[in-house]
This record gives sequence, structure tokens and C-alpha cells, in this order.
Amino acid sequence: MLKVFICGGSGYTGSELLRILALHDEVEIVGVTSEKSAGIKVSEIFPAFFIYKELKFESLQIEKIKSRADVYFLALPHGKSQQVAAELFQAGKKVIDLSADFRIKNASIYEQWYKTQHLYPELLKEAVYGLPEIYREQIKKATLIANPGCYPTSVILPLYPFLKNKLIEASTIIIDSCSGVSGAGRKAEISLNYCEVNEDFRAYNVAKHRHTPEIEQELGFAFGSSITIDFTTHLLPLNRGILSTIYASMNKDLSTADAIEILRQQYQNEPFIQILPEGEIPGIKHVKGTNYCYIGTVVNPRTKRLILVSAIDNLVKGASGQAVQNMNIMFGIDETKALRSLALSP
Amino acid sequence: MLKVFICGGSGYTGSELLRILALHDEVEIVGVTSEKSAGIKVSEIFPAFFIYKELKFESLQIEKIKSRADVYFLALPHGKSQQVAAELFQAGKKVIDLSADFRIKNASIYEQWYKTQHLYPELLKEAVYGLPEIYREQIKKATLIANPGCYPTSVILPLYPFLKNKLIEASTIIIDSCSGVSGAGRKAEISLNYCEVNEDFRAYNVAKHRHTPEIEQELGFAFGSSITIDFTTHLLPLNRGILSTIYASMNKDLSTADAIEILRQQYQNEPFIQILPEGEIPGIKHVKGTNYCYIGTVVNPRTKRLILVSAIDNLVKGASGQAVQNMNIMFGIDETKALRSLALSP
Amino acid sequence: MLKVFICGGSGYTGSELLRILALHDEVEIVGVTSEKSAGIKVSEIFPAFFIYKELKFESLQIEKIKSRADVYFLALPHGKSQQVAAELFQAGKKVIDLSADFRIKNASIYEQWYKTQHLYPELLKEAVYGLPEIYREQIKKATLIANPGCYPTSVILPLYPFLKNKLIEASTIIIDSCSGVSGAGRKAEISLNYCEVNEDFRAYNVAKHRHTPEIEQELGFAFGSSITIDFTTHLLPLNRGILSTIYASMNKDLSTADAIEILRQQYQNEPFIQILPEGEIPGIKHVKGTNYCYIGTVVNPRTKRLILVSAIDNLVKGASGQAVQNMNIMFGIDETKALRSLALSP
Amino acid sequence: MLKVFICGGSGYTGSELLRILALHDEVEIVGVTSEKSAGIKVSEIFPAFFIYKELKFESLQIEKIKSRADVYFLALPHGKSQQVAAELFQAGKKVIDLSADFRIKNASIYEQWYKTQHLYPELLKEAVYGLPEIYREQIKKATLIANPGCYPTSVILPLYPFLKNKLIEASTIIIDSCSGVSGAGRKAEISLNYCEVNEDFRAYNVAKHRHTPEIEQELGFAFGSSITIDFTTHLLPLNRGILSTIYASMNKDLSTADAIEILRQQYQNEPFIQILPEGEIPGIKHVKGTNYCYIGTVVNPRTKRLILVSAIDNLVKGASGQAVQNMNIMFGIDETKALRSLALSP
Repeated sequence: MLKVFICGGSGYTGSELLRILALHDEVEIVGVTSEKSAGIKVSEIFPAFFIYKELKFESLQIEKIKSRADVYFLALPHGKSQQVAAELFQAGKKVIDLSADFRIKNASIYEQWYKTQHLYPELLKEAVYGLPEIYREQIKKATLIANPGCYPTSVILPLYPFLKNKLIEASTIIIDSCSGVSGAGRKAEISLNYCEVNEDFRAYNVAKHRHTPEIEQELGFAFGSSITIDFTTHLLPLNRGILSTIYASMNKDLSTADAIEILRQQYQNEPFIQILPEGEIPGIKHVKGTNYCYIGTVVNPRTKRLILVSAIDNLVKGASGQAVQNMNIMFGIDETKALRSLALSP
Repeated sequence: MLKVFICGGSGYTGSELLRILALHDEVEIVGVTSEKSAGIKVSEIFPAFFIYKELKFESLQIEKIKSRADVYFLALPHGKSQQVAAELFQAGKKVIDLSADFRIKNASIYEQWYKTQHLYPELLKEAVYGLPEIYREQIKKATLIANPGCYPTSVILPLYPFLKNKLIEASTIIIDSCSGVSGAGRKAEISLNYCEVNEDFRAYNVAKHRHTPEIEQELGFAFGSSITIDFTTHLLPLNRGILSTIYASMNKDLSTADAIEILRQQYQNEPFIQILPEGEIPGIKHVKGTNYCYIGTVVNPRTKRLILVSAIDNLVKGASGQAVQNMNIMFGIDETKALRSLALSP
Repeated sequence: MLKVFICGGSGYTGSELLRILALHDEVEIVGVTSEKSAGIKVSEIFPAFFIYKELKFESLQIEKIKSRADVYFLALPHGKSQQVAAELFQAGKKVIDLSADFRIKNASIYEQWYKTQHLYPELLKEAVYGLPEIYREQIKKATLIANPGCYPTSVILPLYPFLKNKLIEASTIIIDSCSGVSGAGRKAEISLNYCEVNEDFRAYNVAKHRHTPEIEQELGFAFGSSITIDFTTHLLPLNRGILSTIYASMNKDLSTADAIEILRQQYQNEPFIQILPEGEIPGIKHVKGTNYCYIGTVVNPRTKRLILVSAIDNLVKGASGQAVQNMNIMFGIDETKALRSLALSP
Repeated sequence: MLKVFICGGSGYTGSELLRILALHDEVEIVGVTSEKSAGIKVSEIFPAFFIYKELKFESLQIEKIKSRADVYFLALPHGKSQQVAAELFQAGKKVIDLSADFRIKNASIYEQWYKTQHLYPELLKEAVYGLPEIYREQIKKATLIANPGCYPTSVILPLYPFLKNKLIEASTIIIDSCSGVSGAGRKAEISLNYCEVNEDFRAYNVAKHRHTPEIEQELGFAFGSSITIDFTTHLLPLNRGILSTIYASMNKDLSTADAIEILRQQYQNEPFIQILPEGEIPGIKHVKGTNYCYIGTVVNPRTKRLILVSAIDNLVKGASGQAVQNMNIMFGIDETKALRSLALSP
């Protein structure tokens, strides 16, 4: 049994790790931290997780935890994750960091968008961006995984083959993304109250969302040179899920069928990518509670633009499910273990 | 591999069987029917269920299906299920009927509440009421299971030990239940439209819901004599889940702790029943997507009434999950197989 | 123009007063307080209320406000309202208090349920309980109005004629009420976050909700002697509205038609009470955004119990709308002024 | 009193006319049609509209209705509206048509997108496109109003001044719009069921929505030459509201403040347009239940694109409210009469 430790277990990505790993028969959760809930049973904070009978949240103290597990998931706030990751890394432990701290290779770009100093820039080159569909081989050998952001996962996967094959004009990419409320985290804020979000829909962080540089970095790597995008995020009145609608002008006169074929070629052996047939467009309900990414596409014959629509569950493929997928790959476990659930529908 | 056939696969209980059984590694789905969608692939109607790649819906023709499987789930409308169940039963097949057709032992009571004739009253004594927590031994040997209704499951489980032990006044039972919209089935009706249900909450079928005689029958069996209840149902603006709040005057001066202890004694070895500690009351979010029934209780010291609150997912413990639990029991499979998921929360 | 001042304008009942009074052509809002938002424009906190162009929230200082208006609405927390009400009362001002501070005539019962001392018990006899359908004549002459609670409004109105006419057994009353989330107020609490409430439904404060003594007091006044009830509250995943389902055993053999007639007799001249015909049961969508109370009733012929179902908007008839109705009555304005909107449906 | 007749009163735009006109003190509703509900009282189909006590739905028969009113609102399906409009027009009546039948000046474009023949092409030049912010003077004198579509209203208003002043590259316009479910109408369809829409979000009619030619026509008129756009629509899990996020490359180096100033200049005297200050972006909650259009804007300094975000209530400013606004203008009534409600928030 693989020994797993979760740093930060009382937020939505931490609790989602608890939910997913409850069905994983090759791992054992040996500890979970929460500063606010230290000393309290997991099942008291989350009655739905009654199976963790005696497991209690504990305070995060590196010295006390660093010898207890084989792999550490960090579901900590951006900026706080760095040091924990660095110390566990230096202790020779495998670390899967769900924060943004090691996603952006250029420390000064990180500092500019996250308004916090990066204290371990030398570790950035050790970190592997944990998107298995692109970096699977590197993930197998990685010690430190920078688990991708939710929006970036939903954006990079559909665009990747078109950029890699130089089929679209990189300067024309416009990304319109919508996320359920769990993407904002589990915190006490009036703007996240039920009555403030329900029956509302709004754009937020227009032209300044912090996932922008992460998306631009990975799209740039695929394309072979730097890319600047328009990326607008919106808050959906639902719990889970991201839908991204992406526009780009094409370099070549492709049909919708051609575009689908390009996606199918790229992802034909991927267990978690579903390319929909012509005429079908994904919705969040296809992926709710699952690790799948569904992609549909249409080429608008009137404007010659490629339109891509992708759907993921922000807490699963967009965070904790992808983290477990990375763990499975790192430890030679069946990549789909504990991740085969179909969407809870309705 | 156990061969499974689903009659009626395009409604919510049928599709829920497809969802649950996708994770069951000891069964194989050999066929699924739908009159409306006959000839169409399951994955076309339900893109979320892409794994059923080549499986197509077919029309229900007893002669063509009766030799193909070991067990048949009937997710057919009340009244239509009878004949299919009877013919499969006569062909020696195991049948798990999710309709109400074999739940009520007295055919004339069935006919009075369901406004339809019962054509196979002789089969009623063969049918076992599929509530494992009460009838597990009979289920093991059963050929025909009458899978319980969603509301009755949520009501019988909490009341059972108090009636069996004659701790409450049977004539004072009042049941106030609320269900998510999937309980109404998957059909085209303006009253079920999003805009008609969202931001609304209403009582329906007041004093005449058809689950009344089923509840009264099973409570009466537990109590040892007949019982008449008030049972009011309400429509909640959410997809899944039932919460029942139940009131009864007590015969004995019990405390809340006593009431919890009585529930714990009854259900201590049950894998799917969770009795909450004093001060905790269940919510639908504890059980969404799961086969669990959560029960909490309070004795009101001012009125001496027992108040029980239970939560289930109407499509899982209230229908398809309980049906799979029954199948597992009938075939000697681990009772919790394919049913161990924790609640999707949030 | 009547000069109106609102103490506590940044919560949901305060902002609802701003919304309703925007359409009232005989009043002028001369000031509004908020400690958190003092100095900030109303239209900055609530962009939907752009018409209050220059109006700014100010800090509540009695000396500065007590000569500025003819009537003061207090939308302050329980316990904090007392002193403000008392000082304005002593300054000879009309006060409509939306808190619970002056609703309960017996100060020790107030103190027991609200866990706070009552500093002005001598004012309790001055306060008129602001339910116009029962106390209209007293309201006309009142200086201090104790505006009713949301749940009590939804419970007292349907039960009143049956208790007054002694048609039900007072000891058998059971009230099962469900409220939208705005009833919990506008505050930063994880338990009120969108993801915690959406797709969930739970009972809360079982057997100990603080509206219990208010309901018992007014039902007792109607009945002529004291009454003890079971009252259970539930949190609905929607913004606005309360639905109460009420059960009581009858003293007389009434039919459903009789029960409807009793309600009609009582409320035939009331502008805001709608009694539904036999076979119709109200839903929250009938009253959303309005000052109406809809009531439906069924007598269960099998149990001889009276079942009443009532629907109100908790922020309008359950709070701010009723407060404006009281103001209209106190100042001889048409009672329905600014309160005639029909339900926003869908 | 102006006599008003509503053709098609049982859908969402028809019932919204009933809701809005209930507060209009200069009109009297003399009749309302519904084929499905002919002979039934309005208050029976819509209990929330109890004030229409004796008004019954009737079947639409031109001969019987054409002399009864001064103005006719047509809330009929596309294709069916044409003939009714034509006959009432020929009878000299004022007609406000909420369908698409007279919005598109080129009959062949109409026929191509709506797949139905236009039988009265000669009337197209008589019809005035009922967007008061652009065509107020023509509306004053019009006999036949083509009331704008919901999405077009939300798109044309923010883009208009930028196109009129040639500040953006017309070929780069991308419009990403999201609508609440009432936009799909009130009809029995499984895809509109609560469980199918709730917790889901999907794009639909990608690159082929029928509002495309209407938007292109009006944007083209503003710009002075024809325009082709990308326009993608999505279905939001909420009842009311449209949010459009619009992208275009600029011709000039404008700042966000400049863009706001251009909108303010254009709309400074408009009673129903609110331009938000820098840093504020509208949400649907600002306009729910109201006739307002809120507009916010950001210029992305990294891409030099103009990003416009607009919010309207699809049933009010996007349909019935705008229709009443047009009626007020046509008959010399205060343009804001019956349309002054602020947003129901929360």
C-alpha cells in the first residue's frame, strides 16, 4: 500500500482527494492537515466521509510529517505551498502540488501575476507540469509535480494539436471560460454566498485572471513561440464544472470533420479524453464528478474560425482527479485507478 | 460474469443502473431496452456513458430477451411492469422490479391507489420487498424482488425500530418529505421544466400520494397492526435526494441519546446506514450519488415528540442502488460491490 | 413627502426596503446606515440600486439622525435594535423594528430564547405586533411596531381562524417550514456558501428555533390559552420564499371545502391574502418578490387532520414588505402603495 | 385608458406582458389568447396573476379581435405572427410583434435562417425595429414594431457607438452570450427539464443561431457596411437573464476610461442604460426583473482588444419590457411607465 499524505484537507480540492482516494485500493491515507480544524475528526467536518473513522486533521509541521508517507499532495494556497514542497522535495519525497507555485517556469512572471515572491526558483526546472496527455513520460520520472490549473486544463487540451501543427493564427486566440463556484475555494466571503451567486452570472477578473500566464506558457511551448491571449472567466451558478469556448482564426481551410479528426489523432489512446462527433457539443453534465475532458468543435464556414468547446470537472480533471492520475503514473499504478466513475447525471 | 438485462433504460432509474453497473466488475450488461430510443446507441442518448460503445437500445420483446440474461432489472412504468415480470418469472429468471407493481401485498389496495388492475395477484406472495436492512434473508432466496419506493425507503428505515419496539403512538405519525426533481421521472411536461421548478418549492399530491399504502404496509408489519399516516410530499429545486422529517408522540420518556441508541442497535452492522451523533442532522449533500441512508434524531423535550430526519439519494438507495444491492445479495456477491462511492460534495 | 430613515441598510432586509421604497411616491429616503460600509455610496455596494445616486451609507449615531425623519425602519441584529428603538421612541419618533426585540411580550421568554438581556421591558407593552391582518387598528395608532418574523407570518396567518374558532386541537399542531437562503441574512459564513447550500436540503435548529416562542405567543392569543408546538425549519436551495406545511387534528368534522370557507371568511377583505380553491396548493413561485401570502388547505379524510400550506416571500411579506405595509397604515397612506407587484415568474 | 390585446398569453413573453401591464395605470387589457388554454381563466393557469379575476384566455380569431383594442402585442411563434400582424396592420391597428417575423429587412435572409416563407415582404419596410435607444423617433410614428430579439438587444447596445464611430475592426467581432432557460420558451421538452439543465452548462446552435442575421443587420447599419460575426450561445442554469461578452480589435489606441466615456456619451440621456464605472462588470443580478441594460467594459492592454460585457433580463428588456417601452413611446406615455422596478436582489 502506497502511503499518502494530504497537506490542506479542508478545502474543496483537499476534500476531493479524500473522496477519490476512498475508492483507491492501493493507497492508504496516513495523514491530513488543516490549520482551522486541527484536532477535529475528518468525519465531523465532512459527515459524508464517515469512512475515515478515526482520522483527524492535524496541524502542518514538516518535521512531524516528512517521514510518514511516500507521496504528498499539497492542497495549500498559492504562495504557502512553495516552502512545504521544497522541504519535502529536499527530504526526497514525491510531491504533487495542486497550487500554482511551480507551474510557471519563469519566476518573475509568477511574481508579477501572483504578487508574491518565489523563494525556490531553482526548483522550477525540477517541477513537471502534470498534464499527462502532454507530459506523461516526464511525469513517470518526476519527483515534483506542478498540477495544472483548472482553466488551463480545459484550454490547453483542445488547443494543443492545432497549435502544435500550426493550424491556427496564435494571435487570434480568444478564450471564454465559465466555472462553477467550487473553483473559488471554500472560504467565508459574502460574494460567494448562495444568494449572491444563485440566479446570477457574471464575468470576473476580466483581462487579468492569474491563469493567463500558465495558459500562455503551455500554448507557447506547443506552438514553439510566445503567445498572448484574451482569456475571460465567468462565474456559473452551479457547484462543479468548467466549460471553455475557444475561438481562433485558421491558417488552413479545415472543415469541422477535419478539426475533429485532428483531435482524434492526438487523443485516440487517451483514457480520459472524449472527442465528440460532428454536431455534438459537450456540456458540464457529461463530466460532473469525473476525470474526463470532453471536447467538441465546429468550424464556422462564414467566418473561417475554429470554435472549440471543452468541458471538465474543475475539482477532478481540473485538480484532484488529475493529481491522482499523476500519482498513478508516478508509481506505476493503472492510470485510471479510482478515476473510472461516470458522470452523476442528472 | 453475471449477465444483466435492463428493461427500460432511458429513464432516470434505468440510466442510473447503467451508471452504477459500469463500475461493477462481476457483471456484464447484455441488453437494454427503450421504446422511444430503440435502435439508437446508449452513448448517443447519454454521451456521459461513452463506455457502452456498441450497446444499443432495443425494443422490449419478451421472447427475444428471456434467454439472454441471469437477472433482469425492470425500470418500467407502474402497470407495465407486471406482465414483463410475470413472464420472466415464469421463465425461471431472477427479476428485480423497480416499479410499484409487486410492493403492495393486497391487490385491491394497489388497484385503489394506482388506478390500474393487478393481473398477477398470485405473484404478490412470491415477491420479496427489497429492503435489505429488514428482509435480507428472504432476498437471498428470492426470485422476484419488489424494489422499494424512494419515499418509503427514507421513511421505513428510521421508523422501523421504534415501531417494532412499540416506542411510539402509531396514530400520531406525520411524515413531511421533500424530493429532488429526478423523482418525477424523465418526461416532457411543462410542470417539470427548469423555469417552473427552479426557485420554487411546493407541496403536491397532498393526502393522496401513492407511496402512502406502501409505507403504511411496511410500518404496519413492523408494528404488528395496521397504521394510518399523514404523508405530505414536496418538490425540491435540486436534482437528487429525499429528506424526510418524521414526527411521532412517544409512549416512553426517551431522551435524544436514547433514540440514537435505539437506531444504532438496530443498524450497527448495516453497511449503508449511518446514524448521526446527537446534535447532527443529515442533509441531502451527505448522500448525493451514494447508496447511504443517513438518519438523525431529536426528542423535543417541550412536546415529548420524537423527530426523525433521514436523507437518501432517491435514484440510488431510493431506486437503482438498492436494486444493485439486492442483486448482490441474491447472487452472493459482496453486498457493497459497485456501491461504495462517497457523496459528491460539493 | 414622508421622510424615511433606514438603520441597517446593507443586509437583505435593509436592501429590500431600498428596493421597495424606490417605487413609493409618497416617501423620501433621507438616510441609511451601515457600519461596515459607512462613507460608501449605496449604488457602489448595490449597483442594481443605481437610482440612489448620491445617497451614502453612514454610521449609526442616534444624536445625528433622530431629528431627520418621520419614521425609522430598524433592520438591525436582534439585541442591537433595542436601544436604537428606545431612544427614537423617547424622541417621539415612529419606529418600525424588523428585529425580534419587541415581538415577545414576556421579557424572560425573550431572554431565554435569544440569550440576551432585554434592557427596555417597559417598552414591550407599547409595541404593537405588526401583522395588519390581525392588529390593523392598533397599528394605525402605534408608535413602535414589532414587525413579525418571517416564519411566524407564514404560520400565524393560516392557523389564526382555526384557533380563534377553536376548530383544532391546539396540542396537536406540527409545523414543518422551509425557507430560502436569504432568511439567514447577508453574512460571510462557509455554511451559507453557494456550494454548501446548492443541491442540498437540511433541517436546522430542530426543536429549538427562536421563532418558536413568537409563534406560540400569537397562536396562544388567538386561541385564548397557551400553546406548545413542534416547529421544524429547513434550508431550501433558493433565494427567497417560505413554505409552511402545518398539521393539526380537528375538533369538528370539517371538509376541505369547509376549511377553505373558514379562511375566506376571515380574509375576504384582505388585499394581501389569497385563499386558493380546492385542489390547489400554493408554491413559492406564486409569491416571489411580492407582499402576498397564499394559503391552500386539505383535510385528510383518512386521518381527520387539517393540513394547511402557506407561501410568502420571506423578505417581503416576511419582513420589509410587511414593514412598508405597516408604515402605510400608520401614516394613512393607501395600504398597498409600493406593494402591488405580482410575482416574478418564472 | 389605452385598450391592449395580447395574442399569445400563455408563454413566457405573454405572461411577462401580463405581469408588467398589471402595474400600468394607463392601460386596460381587453383580451388575451391561448390556443391550448382557450376558455380557461388566466388566474387558473397563472395563480400568481390572481388580479385578472375574470379574464379568460380565448382562441385567436382575427375577425373577433380586430376592433377591440388600440394596440396588439403579438407573443406568437415565429412564422405564425406574420399573418396576424398583417391583418391587424391592414385594419389600421398598432401592432408590436415580439416574434422575429419583421425584424430582418431582407426576406430571403429571413427565409434562409428561419426555414419558413415570408408571406408579407412588402410589410418589412413598414416595420420599425423597436430598439428605442437607436430608433426612438421612428417608433413614435410607427404602426408596426418589430420588437428586437433578446440576444440582439444585449449585443447591439454595447457595440453600437464603437461601430458608428468606426473604432473597432468589424471583422474581428466575437460574441459569447449566455441566456437563462426562459429564453427557450415554455414548452414540454425533455431537454428543458429541470434535471437536464440544472448543474449543467452547454453551448448550443454553435455558428448557426437564428439571431445572427438580426445582429449582423443592425451592426451593419451602424457601421455603414455589412458585417459577419461569430456568435455563440450558451444555456445557463437560471431562470432569467442574458450576459454577453463581446470582443473586438480596436482601430485606435483607446483606454478603458476612453471606452467608458464613449458609452456614456452615447447613452447619457437613456433611462434604461447604465454604464458602469471602471473596474465594475455587470452581472445578471443587476437587471433581473427589470428593463435595464447594464454595460461594463475593459480594454485589454496586452492584446489591444475591446471587451464589452452587457446584462439584460431576456424577458423584460429582451422582450416584453421593451415591448411596453415601445408602446409607451408610440402613445406618448411616459416611456418608463410600469418599467421602473429595480432588480429583485437577491
